[in-house]
Amino acid sequence: MSWKKQSILSAAQFTSADLTEILDLSQRIETALSAKRNLKLLDDFILATLFFEPSTRTRLSFEAAMHRLGGRVISTVGVQFSSLAKGETLFDTLKMVESYSDICAIRHSVEGASSLAAQSIQIPVINAGDGAGEHPTQGLLDLYTIHKRGFLERGKLKIAFVGDIRFGRTIHSLVQLLSHFGAEMVFISPDELQLPDKYRRLLDAAKISYTETHDIAALRDVHVGYITRIQEERFTDHREYEKFKDAYIVDLELVEKCRKDIAIMHPLPRLSEVATDLDRHPAAAYFEQANNGLYVRMALILGLLDAGF
Amino acid sequence: MSWKKQSILSAAQFTSADLTEILDLSQRIETALSAKRNLKLLDDFILATLFFEPSTRTRLSFEAAMHRLGGRVISTVGVQFSSLAKGETLFDTLKMVESYSDICAIRHSVEGASSLAAQSIQIPVINAGDGAGEHPTQGLLDLYTIHKRGFLERGKLKIAFVGDIRFGRTIHSLVQLLSHFGAEMVFISPDELQLPDKYRRLLDAAKISYTETHDIAALRDVHVGYITRIQEERFTDHREYEKFKDAYIVDLELVEKCRKDIAIMHPLPRLSEVATDLDRHPAAAYFEQANNGLYVRMALILGLLDAGF
Amino acid sequence: MSWKKQSILSAAQFTSADLTEILDLSQRIETALSAKRNLKLLDDFILATLFFEPSTRTRLSFEAAMHRLGGRVISTVGVQFSSLAKGETLFDTLKMVESYSDICAIRHSVEGASSLAAQSIQIPVINAGDGAGEHPTQGLLDLYTIHKRGFLERGKLKIAFVGDIRFGRTIHSLVQLLSHFGAEMVFISPDELQLPDKYRRLLDAAKISYTETHDIAALRDVHVGYITRIQEERFTDHREYEKFKDAYIVDLELVEKCRKDIAIMHPLPRLSEVATDLDRHPAAAYFEQANNGLYVRMALILGLLDAGF
Repeated sequence: MSWKKQSILSAAQFTSADLTEILDLSQRIETALSAKRNLKLLDDFILATLFFEPSTRTRLSFEAAMHRLGGRVISTVGVQFSSLAKGETLFDTLKMVESYSDICAIRHSVEGASSLAAQSIQIPVINAGDGAGEHPTQGLLDLYTIHKRGFLERGKLKIAFVGDIRFGRTIHSLVQLLSHFGAEMVFISPDELQLPDKYRRLLDAAKISYTETHDIAALRDVHVGYITRIQEERFTDHREYEKFKDAYIVDLELVEKCRKDIAIMHPLPRLSEVATDLDRHPAAAYFEQANNGLYVRMALILGLLDAGF
Repeated sequence: MSWKKQSILSAAQFTSADLTEILDLSQRIETALSAKRNLKLLDDFILATLFFEPSTRTRLSFEAAMHRLGGRVISTVGVQFSSLAKGETLFDTLKMVESYSDICAIRHSVEGASSLAAQSIQIPVINAGDGAGEHPTQGLLDLYTIHKRGFLERGKLKIAFVGDIRFGRTIHSLVQLLSHFGAEMVFISPDELQLPDKYRRLLDAAKISYTETHDIAALRDVHVGYITRIQEERFTDHREYEKFKDAYIVDLELVEKCRKDIAIMHPLPRLSEVATDLDRHPAAAYFEQANNGLYVRMALILGLLDAGF
Repeated sequence: MSWKKQSILSAAQFTSADLTEILDLSQRIETALSAKRNLKLLDDFILATLFFEPSTRTRLSFEAAMHRLGGRVISTVGVQFSSLAKGETLFDTLKMVESYSDICAIRHSVEGASSLAAQSIQIPVINAGDGAGEHPTQGLLDLYTIHKRGFLERGKLKIAFVGDIRFGRTIHSLVQLLSHFGAEMVFISPDELQLPDKYRRLLDAAKISYTETHDIAALRDVHVGYITRIQEERFTDHREYEKFKDAYIVDLELVEKCRKDIAIMHPLPRLSEVATDLDRHPAAAYFEQANNGLYVRMALILGLLDAGF
C-alpha cells in the first residue's frame, strides 16, 4: 500500500520507496514553481488547519502550500478552542471538520491526537506535531534539505544531532527517516536529554551505527549538524542547564573548524543556540529548510488527495 | 417579499413558502455537491465572518459554505476585537466591514446585535447567534435534518425538546420554524428551565399543542428527541442541577426503549448528555446536522446574494 | 526610481509624481470596481498579513483589497506570536514568511519594525503601522479622500488637525504627504500633545505655513478637519485631560458653524471625539475614508507587485 490516499501520522509509516517518491515529487514541484507561482491543481479542495496549540510558522507553511496548489483553506488557532477546554470531545470537533473540508492538518499538545483523529474521520489527516510525539512533515522537509545538499546520494551520510535528543520530536522523526538511508549518527547531548530507548531499538534493528557524547567538538567531522534548543525546564539541576546552554552554541568560529561542506540545520525558532553570525554563511541550511517545507507539504497534500501531477 | 436579498435575523421572519423554498434549494445543493466539490457560483463575492464571541464550528461551517460556492472569506474572531472592548461602537466596525465584503455573518453575545447590524449597513447580515436570542441558521439546518429523516412529510411530527428550554437559543429558533408544520411538541426540562412565555404565546397563536414534563421517559413515543445541555450556572439550587444532570442522559439503553425510527438530535458541542455509545446507532442524527449545516448555509448565502442556481 | 516594486515604509518616501500616480491608479480601480467586484489580476499571488499587534480593521482592509484583486491571503494575528514573546527573533519569522508569500503587510508595536523587515527579506513590505512611527497607507487613503472631495485641485487647501498631534501616527503620515500640495495647516491640541520637532523641520523645509492653537474654534474656516482621539494616559495632569476631552468634541452644532463644504475626517475607531449626530451629515468623511482604503491598498499592492492594470 502506497503512502498516497492515507494519513500522515508518523515517520515510521514510510517505506524506502515512499521516501524516494516523496523526494522526487517535491523536486518536481520545486522546479514547476520556479516557472509559475500557482500550480492550480486543487481548485475544488479545502484544507482545514486545526491548531489546538499555536504554531504560526507551521500553519502558514501548510496554508501557503495549499494556496500554491490552487486550493482553499479554513483555519483555526488554539485560543479559539474554548469549548474543548470545557470538556468537549476532540471526536465531535473532528466529525464537524470532516463535513467542511477534504484534508486536515492537526497540531495538538497530546501525543497520539492525530492518530485518534485519523481513526475518527474519513478524510486524510496530517500530523503537524503532537506533543513530545512526532512531527513527520518536518522530518520529511529535513530529509529533502539533506537530499538537496547532496548528502543522501554522495555515499555514507554522517549526521550529528545536538541538544534535546530526548524530547525533540523533529529529531525523532528525522532519525526514523534516515534509518532508510544507512546514515551514521552522533548524538550530542547532556545525560538528561539522551535518545529514548524506543529509538535506540529502532536504530539497532535497522543496523544503524551511532555514538553518544557530551562534546560539541564531535560536530567537526560530520556532514550535517542538526541543532535543537535545550530548555531550562527539562533539567532538575540548574547548573547542568547553565553548563550546556553555553557549551552548545554553534557559531561561525565553530563551523570554520568543521568540514567545508557541512550543513547546519535547525527546525526554528531558535534562540541563542545558533549564532546569527552564521546566517549568511553557506553552511546555514535553516532558512532553506523553511523554504523546502513548502515543496514537501505541497507534495504530501497532492499525494494524500491522489491528485495527478 | 421573499426571504431573498434580505438579512436573516430571526426564525420568525420566514413564511411557510420561504421554508419550503429553502429546504428545496438545500436539497438541490446537496445533490449537486455529490457530483462536484465546488459549485463556482460566487467567484466575485466576499463573506465576512464577524465573531465577537468565539464559535469555531459555526464559523468554519459558514466559511466552508462560502468556499464550496466558489467565494472568498475574510474572518475575525472574538479575541481580536480589543478596540471594541475599549468603547468603540459596533456601528463603526460594521460600516468598515460594509466596505470590505458583500455579505456578513455575525455572532455576538448581546441579543439583538444582528438586527442593529442589519439596520446599520446595506449588505445582507446573517445572525449566527446573538446571546440568549436566536440562532436561525441552526434552526434551519435542524429543520432540514428533520425533513431529510422524512418526518416533515410523513404526517404529524411529534418532537421532544430536552434540557435547557429556557435559554437554549437553538430550541427557540426551531420551535418557531416547526410551528409552520403543525408539529406536536413535548418540553422535558426542570422547572427552572421551562419554555419562555414569548414562545408559549407563539405556539398558542399557531394552535400548536404542547405538553411539559420533568420526565425523560416522555422521549419514548416521539419521532425526534432534540437534546441540549443543562448548565450548572443556571440553577440556584445545586442539588436540582445534580438531579437533572444525571436524569437527562440519553444513551443506547434509553433509545432502545423508543420508537425504532427515532432521531436523536443535538446542536453540539455536547458533554455527557448524549452518550457516545449512541454515535454509531442509526438514531444518532447529530453529525448529520453538522453536515446539513453546510448545504443550508450555502442555500442561504446564495439566496441573500440573489445568485441563480 | 518609481514607488513601484519597492516597499512602503514611510510617507517620506514618495515624490509628488508618485502621489499623483497613486491617486490616479486608485481612482481607476474605484471606477473598475463599480462595474465588477473582482479585478482578477493577481490570481497567482499570496499576501501575508503579519499583525504583531491586533488591528482587525486594517487587516481586513488589506485582505479585502487582495481578494478584490483576485489574490490569496495568509494571515496571522498578535495573539499567536507566542514564540516571539519567548525571545525568537523577528528576523527568523520574516525569513519564513518570505518563503510563503509574495508580499507582506506588517503591523508592529515597535517603531522601525517594518524597515528592519524590508532589509531582511526580498519581497515587498508594507508598513501597516509601527508604534508611534508611521502608518503610510492610512496617510495615502486620507490623501485620496481629500482628493475626492476636490480640495487638492481647487486651490490652496486649509486643513486642521485636532487632538493628539504628538503621538498620532496617521497625522504624521498625512502631514508629510500634504507638504507636496502646498496645504496650509492648523494644529489644534493641548500643549502636551503638539507636533514633534521632526515634522516642524519638515514643514519649514517645504515652506508650508502652519499655526498652532488650543482653540477648537479654529476649525471654522478650514476645508478639512482631521480629528483624533486624546488619551488620558498621555497626560501628567489629569485635569488637563478632562478639560480637553470635553473641549475637543466635534458635533453637528460645531460643524454648522464651519464652512459649508467642510470635510470631517477621522482614522477610526473613534470614541466621543466625533459625535454620532454627524454620521449622516455630508461633512462626515470618515466612513468614506474606510471605503477609500480599499481602492488605495489595491493600488499599492498592484504597484508593488508591478502588475499591469
